[in-house]
Amino acid sequence: MQKATLNVIKIGGNIIDNPAQLTQFLKDFASLEGHSLLVHGGGKIATEMAKELGIESQMIDGRRVTDQPSLRIVSMVYAGWINKSIVAQLQSLGKNALGLSGPDGQFVLSKKRNPIPIDYGFVGDISKVNGEALSQLIQLGYHPVFAPITADIEGQLLNTNADTMAQALAIALSEFYQVNLIYCFEKQGVLLDPENDESVINSIDQTSFEELKKQGIVSAGMIPKLENALKAISKGVYEVQIGHAKNLKFPSKGTTIKA
Amino acid sequence: MQKATLNVIKIGGNIIDNPAQLTQFLKDFASLEGHSLLVHGGGKIATEMAKELGIESQMIDGRRVTDQPSLRIVSMVYAGWINKSIVAQLQSLGKNALGLSGPDGQFVLSKKRNPIPIDYGFVGDISKVNGEALSQLIQLGYHPVFAPITADIEGQLLNTNADTMAQALAIALSEFYQVNLIYCFEKQGVLLDPENDESVINSIDQTSFEELKKQGIVSAGMIPKLENALKAISKGVYEVQIGHAKNLKFPSKGTTIKA
Repeated sequence: MQKATLNVIKIGGNIIDNPAQLTQFLKDFASLEGHSLLVHGGGKIATEMAKELGIESQMIDGRRVTDQPSLRIVSMVYAGWINKSIVAQLQSLGKNALGLSGPDGQFVLSKKRNPIPIDYGFVGDISKVNGEALSQLIQLGYHPVFAPITADIEGQLLNTNADTMAQALAIALSEFYQVNLIYCFEKQGVLLDPENDESVINSIDQTSFEELKKQGIVSAGMIPKLENALKAISKGVYEVQIGHAKNLKFPSKGTTIKA
Repeated sequence: MQKATLNVIKIGGNIIDNPAQLTQFLKDFASLEGHSLLVHGGGKIATEMAKELGIESQMIDGRRVTDQPSLRIVSMVYAGWINKSIVAQLQSLGKNALGLSGPDGQFVLSKKRNPIPIDYGFVGDISKVNGEALSQLIQLGYHPVFAPITADIEGQLLNTNADTMAQALAIALSEFYQVNLIYCFEKQGVLLDPENDESVINSIDQTSFEELKKQGIVSAGMIPKLENALKAISKGVYEVQIGHAKNLKFPSKGTTIKA
């Protein structure tokens, strides 16, 4: 039997920070047909909240360290304020959204990252996704909305990368659905020339990615996103799209990554 | 066919504020057999957070007004930090908890309270509970854990009284289950003498409540709790228990309200 389609969509922090763009995106998301699942990032709200509370953000090699006060802030902002605001907006648009984080139903289990060589604090790497239980909820007509907060087997909450969470969910759900993994952010897609928004690369596969990387065409920031995408494809995800949030309904305008 | 039993349990803020008592309570909750649903209050964490952020809590007649900054704080603290911490702890104890707020699945819909005569701000009174959808999740083996945050039909988040939320959930779920509504707090039950913890009134019904009220025996603070309880009974809830959190597994130590 052919599997039904499921769109697993990650919406980036820059869109979350812009209420008008977020509202438009949620309208587009609400109007999508079929099964869908949303993963949201955090944007600048957590950083602003930390600043207001006088908590300094410790950085190592440009990456944030999640200490106990920061963990509390990201849990509050991501799983509380942002997640419930998005769910309430989607419900008002008639979309049956269900706000979740990793510990709910133990859908996403993680493990605290090894503090050696670098201690990033309360950061979790995903160890298991309960795709079967989640697909049961999707089958019932719910559209899960995930905040990037997980917990380990001991119940310790952990801050988790939203891109990776979307990828892990997409891979696990590929057993039950034909999954399109869609990264929505503030750029048009993967660009040949970072200065030229019109230079979107339409399609990338493993071979062309190696070539682009060798030629130094894809930017450093885009490489992990593409590696994530290609890993997803190699693990059963049907297709990955990277594009602007405003083009959610026009995926061909962005970059498509296929096997 | 006889309905299965469902325990709808409200855990009060004073217990949430005490990590050792909360952990013991969650262990007891996790060891309960059969279906259960938890509603938690907020405790002092939201007030402390407001203070740290320099947001003044406006009070009218001893009741808090939820302005926009306060709404954001209670949404963050209740639906984010407390809810996910409880769910993660329950999962680590092997209980399949699912953290929810009103907008999720639109399980609890509310309406902003009329600002006349007193404007309490973003406070929501429950207008509808989707008991059928919720009972479907309970049937699947989930133990919903509700934060007292709801939304109206327009997607506006609203602060909602946790006692009332537990009552509304218990009433709606009585269509599908034989529901025991259990209020767990820091007292032994309804006391004949507020100074004497041993003076628990074992059992109250509508007639004895009127009598106790007339004699001025039940304290002012307890009257709305008992009225809530009696309303729940009149609307199909099987039994209401009011007692100390540490006696969750020994309900006969507290006060039982029956028809």
